Formats: sequence, C-alpha cells, structure tokens
Amino acid sequence: MKENSRNTGSPGKENILIGRNAVSEALSAGRETAFIMAAKRSEGSAKKIIASAREKNIPVRYEEKAVLDKIAGGKNHQGIIAYVSEYRYSSIDEMMMLAEQKGEDPFLVLLDGIEDPHNLGAIIRTAECAGAHGIIIPKRRSVGVTETAAKVSAGASEHMMCAQVTNLSRTLEDLKKRGLWVVACDMDGKTIYPDGEETPPDLTGPVGLVIGAEGRGIGRLIKEKCDFAVSIPLAGKIESLNASNAAAVLMYEIRRQRNEKK
Amino acid sequence: MKENSRNTGSPGKENILIGRNAVSEALSAGRETAFIMAAKRSEGSAKKIIASAREKNIPVRYEEKAVLDKIAGGKNHQGIIAYVSEYRYSSIDEMMMLAEQKGEDPFLVLLDGIEDPHNLGAIIRTAECAGAHGIIIPKRRSVGVTETAAKVSAGASEHMMCAQVTNLSRTLEDLKKRGLWVVACDMDGKTIYPDGEETPPDLTGPVGLVIGAEGRGIGRLIKEKCDFAVSIPLAGKIESLNASNAAAVLMYEIRRQRNEKK
Repeated sequence: MKENSRNTGSPGKENILIGRNAVSEALSAGRETAFIMAAKRSEGSAKKIIASAREKNIPVRYEEKAVLDKIAGGKNHQGIIAYVSEYRYSSIDEMMMLAEQKGEDPFLVLLDGIEDPHNLGAIIRTAECAGAHGIIIPKRRSVGVTETAAKVSAGASEHMMCAQVTNLSRTLEDLKKRGLWVVACDMDGKTIYPDGEETPPDLTGPVGLVIGAEGRGIGRLIKEKCDFAVSIPLAGKIESLNASNAAAVLMYEIRRQRNEKK
Repeated sequence: MKENSRNTGSPGKENILIGRNAVSEALSAGRETAFIMAAKRSEGSAKKIIASAREKNIPVRYEEKAVLDKIAGGKNHQGIIAYVSEYRYSSIDEMMMLAEQKGEDPFLVLLDGIEDPHNLGAIIRTAECAGAHGIIIPKRRSVGVTETAAKVSAGASEHMMCAQVTNLSRTLEDLKKRGLWVVACDMDGKTIYPDGEETPPDLTGPVGLVIGAEGRGIGRLIKEKCDFAVSIPLAGKIESLNASNAAAVLMYEIRRQRNEKK
C-alpha cells in the first residue's frame, strides 16, 4: 500500500505532478490544475510549459530551485511542479465505450498486486503506446496512480484510463460476461512464440490480459478464473521477466496480432 | 556517469551485491565472493543462501539488521548482502564464441547512452530471458553494471555477458565486418508490426540491435552507420516507450522470428 494513500484521500484534495513531461501532458490533457510552481530562471521547455499554463489562466508561482527540491523530495523536477486535482479513476464502462467508439475489440489490462509505482508507471505508458483501452487495478495490496507512477508514465496517465476495483475476481467475472477472453500471463501457460509453423495463441478478440505481481505472480484464485494462460519463452537462466517488461512483450504481441489481422 | 565509478576502480576492489536474488545468482554462477553478510535471525530463502555459501567455503558474517540497512543505503537487502569481486566485463569475441557454441546466429544488444541503472538492469534481465548473447555499453556517458543494475537484473548480470567499449561507432563497424546486421530502434524506422499481410523486417539473421538513450534516442552518427532502422508502432498520445520496455519488445520480436523459423 506504499504511496497509495493519496488515492483514498478526499476528492479534490490537491496533489503534485513533478517534472516537465508529467506537467506538460497534464496541461495538454486539460487536467484541473490549481497552479504551477516554476524554478526562477527556468530555461528551455520549462518556458513553453509556463506559457501554456498562462494561456489556460493557470497561475504560475516562481520559487527558488531549493523550494522545488524540497517539495519534490529528491525526485528530478526539472524546474516544474504542478498542483493538480486528485487522480480521477475511470470506470470499466468508460473503457468499453472507448473501445466501441474506436471500433476496436476491447483490450484491457488487469494488474494483480503490482506494488512498485515504477512498474505501474511503465505499464501505463506502454499500454497507451500499444493501444490498450484501460488498466484495472485492485484497491488493496496494489499501488495506485501516485505521483511517482504518473511521472514514470511520462504523462501517459493523463490519457490512459485506470480503474480501481474492490474485488478483482468479481471484475474478471464481469469482463467474461461482457464477452472478453481473460488471459493470464503465467509460466505454465501456452508459449506465445512457438517453434516452427505452430500458431501462437489467438489474442485478436476482446481481451483482458492479467499480469501478476513482481515475484509472486498471479494469485491462485484469479488464475483459476482466467479462460487460458500464455507464457513468454525464457531462454536463459533467469525464471521471469520484470512485471513491466513482461506486460510490454504481451501487450505488443496483442498489437502485433491485431495489426496482422487488419 | 552517475553510479559508474566502481567500474573504473582497481581490479579486485570489493563491491556489494544487495538482496537474495542478486546474491544467490552470484553464488550459483560461481562469482568470486569475499564474504556474505547476513542479518541475525534470517529466515526462509536467506537460510538456503547461507547454506550454499558455507558449502563453497565462503565466510558468513552475522550482523544486526540495522547494520545491513546502513550498508544497503535504503535498498531492500532482504537480510543478505555479498561482498564480491569487481564486475568482470566480457569481450565481443567471447559473445561471438558463445553464439557459435550454441549454434545460433549472434544476437547482440548495443546501448547508446543508457544512464539509468534501473533501465540497464531490466535490459540485462530481459536480454538473458530473450536469449541474447551479449550487451555492449559505451564506457562514457553510460551507466555500467553497478550494484543497482545488478540488483534490478535479478541476478541476470551474473549470466549475461556485458562488454564496455571506448567507441561505439567503431564497434558497430567491427560487428558489420563480422557479418552482423546492425539495426537501430528509431521512430523513423520500418514498423515491426505492419498491418495486414505485409511481412515485418527480417530480424532472424546475425543481428546487433541498437537501443538509444532515454529521451534523446540514438545519436545521429551511430544511426547513420546502422544497416537499417525499425520502429515500434505507437497507438496513443505518447511519443515513445521507456528504454527497457522498447528493448523488451524488440528483443522478443527477434526471439519470435527466430522461433518461427525453427
């Protein structure tokens, strides 16, 4: 639950975004912003961000770099911090609607117990790039979309929808009823890259991809409820990829199959 | 150059590995180890590591958890730290020999200016899993295989060969002479996942995959020397993946094509 507290705070409570990428993406996505704090004598892209904030009538407060250092708590702020409204989680209905609007089969990613905000941030960024419609995170024992996750996502958290759910297992049932195939990423699954002519498991339809926690993998109860499991072939002496790299390989395998089918 | 200093230290200078994964992989790979430091009252897998160190006649020193906390400097040591010999870099000849021994086309990864040890560690881990034969890192303006990189690699740095080179551009010429196709990962490259029946760029032969720095991408001079460039399709509003996720997608696309060809 580390770093997760802000998502349970009262709605409207202010939060900070740290760094140029995170702030400029928030501005271009029209995120509600109380004010921008900029280091005095800012140069380069920081100036552009300040100009863009001014255009949107968002106040800009100039402070010494040391003030920003303190607020950022060691993170690299690049002279820019934004005070924004609490991260707004989306609903699964909204994700399904987005897929429909785009005329695409739904492509959702379910994270079972990711605790590291760096992994979550990287997954959000890659999900946005791979063309997923949303990410589903359990409320408990998982990191939420914190400042760190938002920063690591390089602004993708302003575009990619994330939902928080109380019971991942029930959500999984719900997705099945909505016609999605729920696919576990698991060592014992069918390899996505078989040798020779054999075809890989079909991931072109409506899909919910379940990625497990670092180290532990997917919980047993969740795994049992999945329609099937796929695995990433491992050639070396290490038994797993890190969560964000595994998610990247699988999300892009879905993208590859969808592009091929076009 | 941050965190890079230890790799320029005198040979034999001791370094620390932090955490159970990193230490147990170092032990099983037979890495030269001065001694293990274990937290008093260690449980679970820590006991196994201690037993395995004893078998290899490596001294074990017990200390209070607070002592390990201090040495680990905030990193999660899980009760185990090892004092090991300096990371030993490999040569490109060794990588080529490994490929030959395995009867595989050489598959090398060249990193142009990766500065974040977390990204390097994740790339080393995924390279090991995807079946690459080695990683090539420039000596300057790049992170080396530091303690952080080794820990993030989950022990893969004990197996995956890494070479440090003075001049990446010259190394690239050398690889071409050795018969490798040198492929840049670049936004302007040919997409690896084309729509419809079109075939993706062939990555099944001897290959050197070049990944650029976070943010900046591959340097112009290096890019010009590459045989061709490939890109990862981007569906959303974000202009790039992070370096380790991009590397993961491409390394596994090479794996996929090689498996398909078998």
